[in-house]
Amino acid sequence: MNNFVLYNPTAILFGRGQVEAVGERMAPLGKNILLLSGGASAERGGLLARVREKLRIAGVAVTDLSGVRPNPVIEKVREGVALCKSQRLDAVLSVGGGSVLDSAKVIAAGAAYEGDPWDLLAKKVKPATPLPVGCVLTLAATGSEVNGNAVISNPATAQKLAWYHPHAYPRFSILDPELTFTVPRNQTAYGAVDIMSHVFEQYFHNAPSTPLQDGFAETILRTVIENAPRAMAKPDDYNARANLLWASTLALSGPVGAGVVGDWTCHMLEHELSAKYNIAHGAGLAVVYPAWMELMAPRKPERFRHYAVTVWGIDPRGRDDLAVAREGVAATRAFFRDTLGVGVRLADYGIGPDRLGEMADAVYALKGPTGLGGLAREDLEKVYRGAV
Amino acid sequence: MNNFVLYNPTAILFGRGQVEAVGERMAPLGKNILLLSGGASAERGGLLARVREKLRIAGVAVTDLSGVRPNPVIEKVREGVALCKSQRLDAVLSVGGGSVLDSAKVIAAGAAYEGDPWDLLAKKVKPATPLPVGCVLTLAATGSEVNGNAVISNPATAQKLAWYHPHAYPRFSILDPELTFTVPRNQTAYGAVDIMSHVFEQYFHNAPSTPLQDGFAETILRTVIENAPRAMAKPDDYNARANLLWASTLALSGPVGAGVVGDWTCHMLEHELSAKYNIAHGAGLAVVYPAWMELMAPRKPERFRHYAVTVWGIDPRGRDDLAVAREGVAATRAFFRDTLGVGVRLADYGIGPDRLGEMADAVYALKGPTGLGGLAREDLEKVYRGAV
Repeated sequence: MNNFVLYNPTAILFGRGQVEAVGERMAPLGKNILLLSGGASAERGGLLARVREKLRIAGVAVTDLSGVRPNPVIEKVREGVALCKSQRLDAVLSVGGGSVLDSAKVIAAGAAYEGDPWDLLAKKVKPATPLPVGCVLTLAATGSEVNGNAVISNPATAQKLAWYHPHAYPRFSILDPELTFTVPRNQTAYGAVDIMSHVFEQYFHNAPSTPLQDGFAETILRTVIENAPRAMAKPDDYNARANLLWASTLALSGPVGAGVVGDWTCHMLEHELSAKYNIAHGAGLAVVYPAWMELMAPRKPERFRHYAVTVWGIDPRGRDDLAVAREGVAATRAFFRDTLGVGVRLADYGIGPDRLGEMADAVYALKGPTGLGGLAREDLEKVYRGAV
Repeated sequence: MNNFVLYNPTAILFGRGQVEAVGERMAPLGKNILLLSGGASAERGGLLARVREKLRIAGVAVTDLSGVRPNPVIEKVREGVALCKSQRLDAVLSVGGGSVLDSAKVIAAGAAYEGDPWDLLAKKVKPATPLPVGCVLTLAATGSEVNGNAVISNPATAQKLAWYHPHAYPRFSILDPELTFTVPRNQTAYGAVDIMSHVFEQYFHNAPSTPLQDGFAETILRTVIENAPRAMAKPDDYNARANLLWASTLALSGPVGAGVVGDWTCHMLEHELSAKYNIAHGAGLAVVYPAWMELMAPRKPERFRHYAVTVWGIDPRGRDDLAVAREGVAATRAFFRDTLGVGVRLADYGIGPDRLGEMADAVYALKGPTGLGGLAREDLEKVYRGAV
């Protein structure tokens, strides 16, 4: 186990009806806040009205900004920052999924920064005191509800960049599984891929002697594999939705990655993909991850064999490590494709092979030879080509 | 999964050499602090000297109080509170195991309370603003390093009582596995029992659909079962010590118990036992837990069967649930007794049967029929009698 520092100050309110507490949780953070949301679904389901009513009772005045999209863009962040500055707002409440929350974090930081908010992403600027952020989550996927990370796209530069700030953790995150009952079938599937990918990024590591981290990761993976199909078959299955939602939070709340060095190559590869082609994050991950595993399994057969046995229950008897490892990789792709119904090939999204080299260049420029495999530029292109 | 609120603001610094950070972590909390420690072992090993040097460099003045014993008593807490008040100290640093840390928390609260500190335990008084507490941990066992709990004994009333305060979480906990290399064999074994018991208290629950909580719990149990014997055989086995230490923290840091109602009957039974007979907490738990499991297995055979299979790897084929469950209970007792070398019978500690009824009365008076089994007073006495 490697050394680590773990600090997670987000208060998690989990379960039915927890949204009732949004007023009392928000009021100490700000009396004049930005209420950030996404499309019309939160408005339609009555959630925003419930939230506004609780805020009103708690004496919190609201300035609305809606219309945050998947693969959230810097332009909407700029809009939020401008509102915070012109209206002298003192906190941000995110009602939505990861795209809304990531935008809320960067708006909160941008409100405390004089320059253009894209500097935060591009130059990794970290203002000392972002506005406090609260969160009502409506989708099991992101993990953003318990960390200080955000990912924002800039269509003008065709970039999608990650950012972290130690004071950008939500002060509270309300996680009510019932708010995810209305998540459509495909979004539920993408969310499951996203959660599993967050675990993969931390699970395929080189650190010695990590039975706790490994066992936690395998537990989360098995839970998603079991519960995602249930939630897709019966969208109001409370236990299935609750287990998915809590899995998404635990995947990025600390213990899975504490004491290991995560890989995150596939997230870089996916960000490049969705920056160029604007496909859903979960869709991009379902394409990239099995291809990455196929490349990596022969390089780390023991680790991938262990994954195949503990996560997929594959019987290893009578076969060598690599054969078992490859069966685990095949099981992963088959689960994404056949059980979740998510495309696992670039062609499934109408993406041709012509820009793969250019994308590999861009990823390599950002990260260099890092991760479990210390992947070289040509390896990165191989992953894309393995997903054609 | 039940509703829950989870908030854990302790910064964890884990790994070799993290004690170097004690000065910079402590200085923002107080410039004039109480340095609380236990016996001579921390002084002898040079740890206290290292800590004092780092505090001096950071400009933190120290008032010493040592001599906290296992099963820490209210008298020493009173001493610490008096020092905090007379010297106008502004924070408390605990260097030691759970006994020192629990005492530090109650001292920190007592310093902000006008009356006698035993009121905090007996009357559950919670002053608004305890002094901030920092922690350098030297023993894998307590879990106190990541929560707001404390347990203190009062020999005058033969009571051992638990207390919680939402602001008594350590602001930081330094967990360096190397500091546990000198923990003696028997203390290492008691610590392993303590960690496993903390997991048991949360694992044997009635909540529906908790695959994440259950998998995390089983991972911690398997990790302790594998690593405790290694640490006993080779006290400076870094990985074994690191896994035990991190297991002890994870057991009580939140995720295992989030969404379930813990039992804690055995802790109540043990506290009464060590209040009357002053045996080590881990020793008392090794006596009580297998006896409790024997009583409970026939009432919840499926749950105990699951425990036997997932934690002990017992092959369930061809036998009914209860038979498998009982094999899991027997494996638990055998592990405590044969592998860890800890007594599992009251007689092993020279404790006769004459006060068992009186102790059952005392526990029932505190808790009533609660826990997994809703145990009645006669059930509590049965547990004690099953451990004779």
